[in-house]
Amino acid sequence: MHELILGGARSGKSRHAEIRAEASGLEVVYIATAQALDDEMAARIARHRGQRPAEWGLVEEPLALAAALQREAAGDRCLLVDCLTLWLSNLLLTDEPDRLANETEQLLALLPDLPGHIILVSNETGLGVVPMGALSRRYVDAAGWLHQALAAHCQRVTFCVAGLPQVLKGEPV
Amino acid sequence: MHELILGGARSGKSRHAEIRAEASGLEVVYIATAQALDDEMAARIARHRGQRPAEWGLVEEPLALAAALQREAAGDRCLLVDCLTLWLSNLLLTDEPDRLANETEQLLALLPDLPGHIILVSNETGLGVVPMGALSRRYVDAAGWLHQALAAHCQRVTFCVAGLPQVLKGEPV
Amino acid sequence: MHELILGGARSGKSRHAEIRAEASGLEVVYIATAQALDDEMAARIARHRGQRPAEWGLVEEPLALAAALQREAAGDRCLLVDCLTLWLSNLLLTDEPDRLANETEQLLALLPDLPGHIILVSNETGLGVVPMGALSRRYVDAAGWLHQALAAHCQRVTFCVAGLPQVLKGEPV
Repeated sequence: MHELILGGARSGKSRHAEIRAEASGLEVVYIATAQALDDEMAARIARHRGQRPAEWGLVEEPLALAAALQREAAGDRCLLVDCLTLWLSNLLLTDEPDRLANETEQLLALLPDLPGHIILVSNETGLGVVPMGALSRRYVDAAGWLHQALAAHCQRVTFCVAGLPQVLKGEPV
Repeated sequence: MHELILGGARSGKSRHAEIRAEASGLEVVYIATAQALDDEMAARIARHRGQRPAEWGLVEEPLALAAALQREAAGDRCLLVDCLTLWLSNLLLTDEPDRLANETEQLLALLPDLPGHIILVSNETGLGVVPMGALSRRYVDAAGWLHQALAAHCQRVTFCVAGLPQVLKGEPV
Repeated sequence: MHELILGGARSGKSRHAEIRAEASGLEVVYIATAQALDDEMAARIARHRGQRPAEWGLVEEPLALAAALQREAAGDRCLLVDCLTLWLSNLLLTDEPDRLANETEQLLALLPDLPGHIILVSNETGLGVVPMGALSRRYVDAAGWLHQALAAHCQRVTFCVAGLPQVLKGEPV
């Protein structure tokens, strides 16, 4: 089972992903894409970490996500990636112009072959006013196209609003 | 019945709240959190006021919302709070750093004991690009967490898009 | 059949509109509101054009949308307007202060009489933080009110998330 969990900022999407991972009954490995580059981000990371079960594995991978998934995936494992949003931002901010396209292509090519339960968490950011900065627009474009490709692939897609998961694709809860 | 009505800017959430209040059959008291600090806001307030039934009670309370709700709530009354968004903004802009946390805590502690029909209207603002300003991010965080706590408490949660209310929790329309 | 297709940036709304137009079985005329004012926009326009069937008619009309619809509509035609968002932006940026109000009024007055299948595509932009600029706020207001009026009129309203169309009004897919 591959699933995509979308939602806005503070919409409860990480919490929902954690509930789904617990419910899988499998060994869970949490794949964190965040980098503690400033105090605000470090505090967010620490808060998320404190909420997760202690027995979960942890892999920190800000950029090479497809490689990490390939390495960690197994039929008796649930991989929880939180979140694609930060991964895309990290890729956009590298010095390598093609890195974003290459990494997302690798991810999409790899996914159909990944065994086990894969949970991908991402922010929906395309529902506000079109941002002024060219980098923000590139981000919104990249995120939107990735979400469409992942939603087409995944068996289950959920959209969280105010902590209430709405199933957009797949069996209702 | 306690209900939360979410939606974007100009999504018809206030209109839907007014229809719900009318349909309650109870005496309605409108609790306005807006402050007419500039002409644009004064015009918005006047427009909203002109759309409401003249017999509705009106309480203006930009900050001490829990106290106002405690004072006004009754089994044969419907209180319509419009909106939580401005209340949170007002709290963030006071000089008192703990005011926001204290007031939201009071609201959440009080709600389970409030009699009558309570309708809470709030803007969903977390679905755009993460804002640059630290204050905007604090606002998005505060709003998101409050929405999650309120949605968990309320029997009915509605999300308005283009004037069309979508029921996220509770009986469909 | 008149329908409104809403969604965020890169949500798959144009693709969904094209699928709906193809499925109508009618002659399709695509009404483009975009203006190629810079390279980024020219590239977006060219990409969209390359994705559409070659036999579709094309009308480019950045401002006088109601007049174009009146001229082109016919019982055996499907008109696809992509998108209202750019049309509203174009109107806001003219030197004529009343142009936006006049044009939207004309559109709403004309719509009930239009024969054939009409598909209107628009961006939902009201779910982020309230924008700082007065022009952006005027845009969000204008778009929100127009969406409400169109959603009340149309037999079918769809909201696209990650390429997955959610029916808000009308028969489920």
